Amino acid sequence: VEIAVNLNRLKDDLESLSQIGRTPKGGVTRPSFGKADLEARRWLKDKIEEAGLAYRQDGAGNIFGRFGRSDGKVVMAGSHLDTVVNGGKFDGAAGVLAALECLRMIKERKIALSKPLEVVAFTDEEGNLTGDFLGSRAFTGQLNEEDIRRGATQIGPPLKDILAGADLTIDSILGAHGQAPEVEAYIELHIEQAETLDTESIPIGIVDKIAGKHYRWCSFVGKTGHAGTVPLELRQDAFLGLADFALKATRLVAADFYGSMVTIGKVNVLPGSFSNVPGQADFSFEFRSTSKATLRDLEKALFSQAEDVASSRGLVFASRIVDKTEPVTIPERILQAIKDESDKLGYSSFQLPSGPGHDAQILAAVTDVGMIFIPCIDGISHSPQEMIRWEDLEKGANVLLQVLIRLAQ
Amino acid sequence: VEIAVNLNRLKDDLESLSQIGRTPKGGVTRPSFGKADLEARRWLKDKIEEAGLAYRQDGAGNIFGRFGRSDGKVVMAGSHLDTVVNGGKFDGAAGVLAALECLRMIKERKIALSKPLEVVAFTDEEGNLTGDFLGSRAFTGQLNEEDIRRGATQIGPPLKDILAGADLTIDSILGAHGQAPEVEAYIELHIEQAETLDTESIPIGIVDKIAGKHYRWCSFVGKTGHAGTVPLELRQDAFLGLADFALKATRLVAADFYGSMVTIGKVNVLPGSFSNVPGQADFSFEFRSTSKATLRDLEKALFSQAEDVASSRGLVFASRIVDKTEPVTIPERILQAIKDESDKLGYSSFQLPSGPGHDAQILAAVTDVGMIFIPCIDGISHSPQEMIRWEDLEKGANVLLQVLIRLAQ
Repeated sequence: VEIAVNLNRLKDDLESLSQIGRTPKGGVTRPSFGKADLEARRWLKDKIEEAGLAYRQDGAGNIFGRFGRSDGKVVMAGSHLDTVVNGGKFDGAAGVLAALECLRMIKERKIALSKPLEVVAFTDEEGNLTGDFLGSRAFTGQLNEEDIRRGATQIGPPLKDILAGADLTIDSILGAHGQAPEVEAYIELHIEQAETLDTESIPIGIVDKIAGKHYRWCSFVGKTGHAGTVPLELRQDAFLGLADFALKATRLVAADFYGSMVTIGKVNVLPGSFSNVPGQADFSFEFRSTSKATLRDLEKALFSQAEDVASSRGLVFASRIVDKTEPVTIPERILQAIKDESDKLGYSSFQLPSGPGHDAQILAAVTDVGMIFIPCIDGISHSPQEMIRWEDLEKGANVLLQVLIRLAQ
Repeated sequence: VEIAVNLNRLKDDLESLSQIGRTPKGGVTRPSFGKADLEARRWLKDKIEEAGLAYRQDGAGNIFGRFGRSDGKVVMAGSHLDTVVNGGKFDGAAGVLAALECLRMIKERKIALSKPLEVVAFTDEEGNLTGDFLGSRAFTGQLNEEDIRRGATQIGPPLKDILAGADLTIDSILGAHGQAPEVEAYIELHIEQAETLDTESIPIGIVDKIAGKHYRWCSFVGKTGHAGTVPLELRQDAFLGLADFALKATRLVAADFYGSMVTIGKVNVLPGSFSNVPGQADFSFEFRSTSKATLRDLEKALFSQAEDVASSRGLVFASRIVDKTEPVTIPERILQAIKDESDKLGYSSFQLPSGPGHDAQILAAVTDVGMIFIPCIDGISHSPQEMIRWEDLEKGANVLLQVLIRLAQ
């Protein structure tokens, strides 16, 4: 179909939205159900209604705007409006507003489609409230009350008060799946959050796999003591256990699981003073792989490594799961659709995996998903320095537009 | 001289003092100039005056009780009243109250001495306010305004408000040295804070060396990034740098500086989340040795190691000094006095170094110092579980009594 997005309109939308929750550093702070997010939600509702799309919000606060018939399997596109603290203006927002622009254009051009289309903004993709992907997990029925309570942060007001500010409850979140339509396919446009496309000057990344990950909170426990009296050879220093494990785990993944990731990003040493031998070292432990089998093998190898370190150093290793997502392989028909439409438009494209998780990964449990990556400058995201080239966004949105028409026809 | 301490009286004093600042766990929390410390100071003043000793407090809040003439070089004994949070009832208190009991007994028995004797309780040995040894540093003139301000903790009320609660000022602290008498010798009885004496069933430890230490606050700085996108081989992970350094530094000290200590007791990783590669790792870095030359060599070797790790991993290493004490060698005449008096009393004794620092170490800059260690059960200190055998305290106090008489005659 001879049709293209209106870049100026899309650009204006992105600039307007980025003013909501704007930080002095030029970034955006818009955690779900915070003041800025509530304002952004009202803004999106207005945009959806102005475009003549049918607005709907489900019990998890996911926002939808529909074009086309009210029944049948829906072709969806979108992403999320929420951001990390002092994040960028494209992560999430670009996917929602590109989808909005596509639906707006399809409606204006009165394109006849056999399936309904929906733009969607999922709640709390960044996991500021209860862990990543609250909205898409609720939408797809992959969430129970225990998950919500376990994940709820201990900082700030109680979760139910935060939800009340958006007229939601834990029950309404758990009820979102029951209200959900059947989904024909879900396509998400997103900035790459890595350098590959930018370095190679390729405007369209066709995501073929999304990495699954384990978030664990772990500890080595040893024995504290006075740093001036306990001889080095008698210490059960929990931090040295962690140091040993961190290096061995990284070497193990680099050598035997090339392409997988392991990260220790947060560390707390106890009792935590200059002159105490650490009796306990708590740490976040994250590992990722794009293959289910590899992720399983990786888990086994890493935990066996941790136990070896603990037993050789007189420590105890403990670990609990905080969050977990499954690796996803994008179906061939979606890869092909994105590739074909990019080719037809004359845009160069490229298959690549996604290290970060996305709502598409959660949607994969119930439907065929696809992701269109556009380059972000120097791969920077989650930062006020997050930047794109507008022509790349235009190309990405045009591919999304054609793919949505193709899937809904 | 045929004279001995009254253990019951000393024991009653220790039990009374331990009620001040007592914690629910059976420990003692008595940081300098906190409510409990102010009460303990009033309690000690009453005890000094009841004993007929001349009470004095200097501008740093150090408390003295004098027996004998008001001029001439003073033979001093004591330690400190302040404790760490949830510390024990013997660390510091045993030294002050044993000295008080010695002076009380000497006065009651009207022992004629040519030099005055003083019991002393030094302010903030544990360094809760501005770094270790505030009182003894002020007393010996080893403190300037910059040290006080730099060391002052950022938590809690401003230092000048805390000092005001004890009718002191930064100026009065800096003036303490000007008021100080000349000191003939300083003897400190203290629990060992390690297991040697307890394991060997030796009641008297004759400290021959006190380790010097460097406290540094250090950082490795690398580059943060998304844990799902930056390949392991391209990371400049600051925490892995710290892990590498922690293991290498420990191996270096164990292999080339046997008997010295190195400890990383506090760690802060930034930005500090599951899914960010650490861009910065801040950590406390402490190393100790009983030899000045070794401490110098150790410093050089450790910092060269840190620079090697940084350069091999694309990181920057930074470090600033937080505190520093010099190693002390106890003079032969003091070692001999303690040994002789222990022998005469029929108590077995043993020379050993002190890993932890003590006020005696600071006093060594201006006078001959000595330390009498008594066993603590299982070497435990800075804990509600800190415990002694009363007969060991009696023996230690009797040795202190004889040594004070010998030095003041």
